[in-house]
Amino acid sequence: LSAARDRFILPQGTVYLDGNSLGPLPAAVGPAVSDVVTRQWGQDLITSWNLNGWWHAPGRIGDRIGRLIGAAAGQVMCGESTSVQLFQALTAACRMRPGRSVLLTDGANFPTDQYIADAVARLFGLTVRRVHPSEVGERLNSEVAVVSFSVVDYRTGELFDSAAITELVHESGSLMIWDLAHAAGALEVALDDIGADLAVGCGYKYLNGGPGAPAYVYLASRHIADADLPITGWHGHAEPFELHQHYRPADSIERARIGTAPLLSMLALEAGLTAFDGISVAAIRRKSLALTDLVIDFADNYLTPWAEVVTPREEHRRGSQVSLRVQHAYEVCQALIARGVVGDFRAPDLLRLGFGPLYLSHTEVLSAMLAVHDVLAEQAWRDPAFSVRAAVT
Amino acid sequence: LSAARDRFILPQGTVYLDGNSLGPLPAAVGPAVSDVVTRQWGQDLITSWNLNGWWHAPGRIGDRIGRLIGAAAGQVMCGESTSVQLFQALTAACRMRPGRSVLLTDGANFPTDQYIADAVARLFGLTVRRVHPSEVGERLNSEVAVVSFSVVDYRTGELFDSAAITELVHESGSLMIWDLAHAAGALEVALDDIGADLAVGCGYKYLNGGPGAPAYVYLASRHIADADLPITGWHGHAEPFELHQHYRPADSIERARIGTAPLLSMLALEAGLTAFDGISVAAIRRKSLALTDLVIDFADNYLTPWAEVVTPREEHRRGSQVSLRVQHAYEVCQALIARGVVGDFRAPDLLRLGFGPLYLSHTEVLSAMLAVHDVLAEQAWRDPAFSVRAAVT
Repeated sequence: LSAARDRFILPQGTVYLDGNSLGPLPAAVGPAVSDVVTRQWGQDLITSWNLNGWWHAPGRIGDRIGRLIGAAAGQVMCGESTSVQLFQALTAACRMRPGRSVLLTDGANFPTDQYIADAVARLFGLTVRRVHPSEVGERLNSEVAVVSFSVVDYRTGELFDSAAITELVHESGSLMIWDLAHAAGALEVALDDIGADLAVGCGYKYLNGGPGAPAYVYLASRHIADADLPITGWHGHAEPFELHQHYRPADSIERARIGTAPLLSMLALEAGLTAFDGISVAAIRRKSLALTDLVIDFADNYLTPWAEVVTPREEHRRGSQVSLRVQHAYEVCQALIARGVVGDFRAPDLLRLGFGPLYLSHTEVLSAMLAVHDVLAEQAWRDPAFSVRAAVT
Repeated sequence: LSAARDRFILPQGTVYLDGNSLGPLPAAVGPAVSDVVTRQWGQDLITSWNLNGWWHAPGRIGDRIGRLIGAAAGQVMCGESTSVQLFQALTAACRMRPGRSVLLTDGANFPTDQYIADAVARLFGLTVRRVHPSEVGERLNSEVAVVSFSVVDYRTGELFDSAAITELVHESGSLMIWDLAHAAGALEVALDDIGADLAVGCGYKYLNGGPGAPAYVYLASRHIADADLPITGWHGHAEPFELHQHYRPADSIERARIGTAPLLSMLALEAGLTAFDGISVAAIRRKSLALTDLVIDFADNYLTPWAEVVTPREEHRRGSQVSLRVQHAYEVCQALIARGVVGDFRAPDLLRLGFGPLYLSHTEVLSAMLAVHDVLAEQAWRDPAFSVRAAVT
């Protein structure tokens, strides 16, 4: 994958290990966005909806994302924020299981996933129960309407067995929603093969779509006709341009459209996704595992007793990140940034290092780990400058 | 306002009368977006959340929009799509009026507004009744929870008396939600002064924020603490970075945040809004009325019997557009586009001409009307090329 690095523009002197929060800039984005602004918007104006393919962008980009997450065409729609898509997916799923009273989520799930589960449960009078994905079997029964988990734990980097969990969930007649935020673009997700019901994900992590890039929702083809989505924007209408007074959803995945897409951000995502062209997700996964193997080995050999590897060591249980438990993790993170190693901090004590396989080399990752070693060994994090809390951590 | 034209980049040889659908490109946008992509995203990466003010962009831009719609700071939040914001606003409003069973909207309201009203009413077991804003008084009573109207009718360009309607609605103890899509940036909206409860609007019409620019929501300060919004994304949490397991909304307008904003689109909107700097909305309104006066006079004098002015003639009942009822309106619209006059068509028989006061001159508007005359007089629309329906009209 070393050639893929040329598809990205990265700052000199930086090893960027935060692509699981905001992926770096693909080289194709700048020219694409400039064209969208200057020619498409500036010159073609409203005619761009046809002339430059704006109208079909959400579905077109959805299909492109689908290829990275094991979804055949016509099941993924790009648009809106992950929170909104999760609200849509959870509501539709609850409506598909009337009479069931429980919604299961992971108590360690990303906050939005838990908040939206609570919000949707409240609307439908359901009860939310929190369970770790590894223990879901114990909580499944005929009362469970929907299970909503992330494929990869955003803090620990633990990868769950989405196939086995989905199968278990289906055995109890429940529906399975996967959040792919920390998985898509970094490892193999096989939504169609595992029989996932619905899924959501964001565009700005391993998909490298840019800050706040639009999210996406997956509706398995067998569910599309029954997907009763709550936010019925006119773009999802069967005949949007007839401007009917009453809503009738499109028969296809087009029903998952809501409002007018933020096209600058969406077309930047489309351009960013070209960085995956010609590269298999299997190859990406191999590189990811090689990099995280290296990091875990290094930590075991050189970072004890300062740091403890929190991420599972087994490859099949590991996403594309390694989280290290360290004292003064915030200050350590800042000291590393000062040395050009950009990771992030997750309260209370995690240094979270993410590995974008498309643009990171083994050499870079090793140099980053040497910096981690030095910061910890030299206690460089004790510099008072590194304890100043920024507004956004 | 003639100097303001230099703040826009418009295609040569075009008179653009579709800024009520997609505003043209402000000159400030290209450099701003280039900086966001190349420097902020490309070089500063994740640090941009602090360094380049990304985290505070939604509220900062909300306040900037607030200045154009008569809202003091701290009441407007930018983000998401108009459909989503309307879903938020309608749900919050219904929750503020428990026990009331009716939601009123306008049967001629923009489709999304009607669809979302139906969707929210269904969630809460309410009944939607449709009434023209001019007749709302007849339908108001103690059963009405919420009234949701647009300030300007998107088809006819009729401007409603938002102050009088809001007052009537309040007399029945109901809440008033205004959709400002076809008003903000083109005429005076005084949300605080008229006592509006909630409002929404889009960023890509007269605000010139670019295709699919993020929308915004207004919550009157007296309602913020009680605004129980349904989509509880983590950005709206009182302490988002503590990553709590349960949602607690921010005390301020920050609670109206949902997911991560599409920053390329959002910061393009921010740059686009600088085209309003130093210009009063009153001056914009005067120019708008002068232009639409000219168009109506021209139509009355030179376009009969082919075209009928549908937009109200009284200034206080007129937005910044003039809609003409003509036979073969679709073909007429296409024939005009071929002559460089870009308006749009609304089924079944409306030619809709919108007037962006910041960038249109009297001379241009007059030349556009001469083209309308010629197309109708010469029956230029009979050319079969003009009857080919594009996918998006």
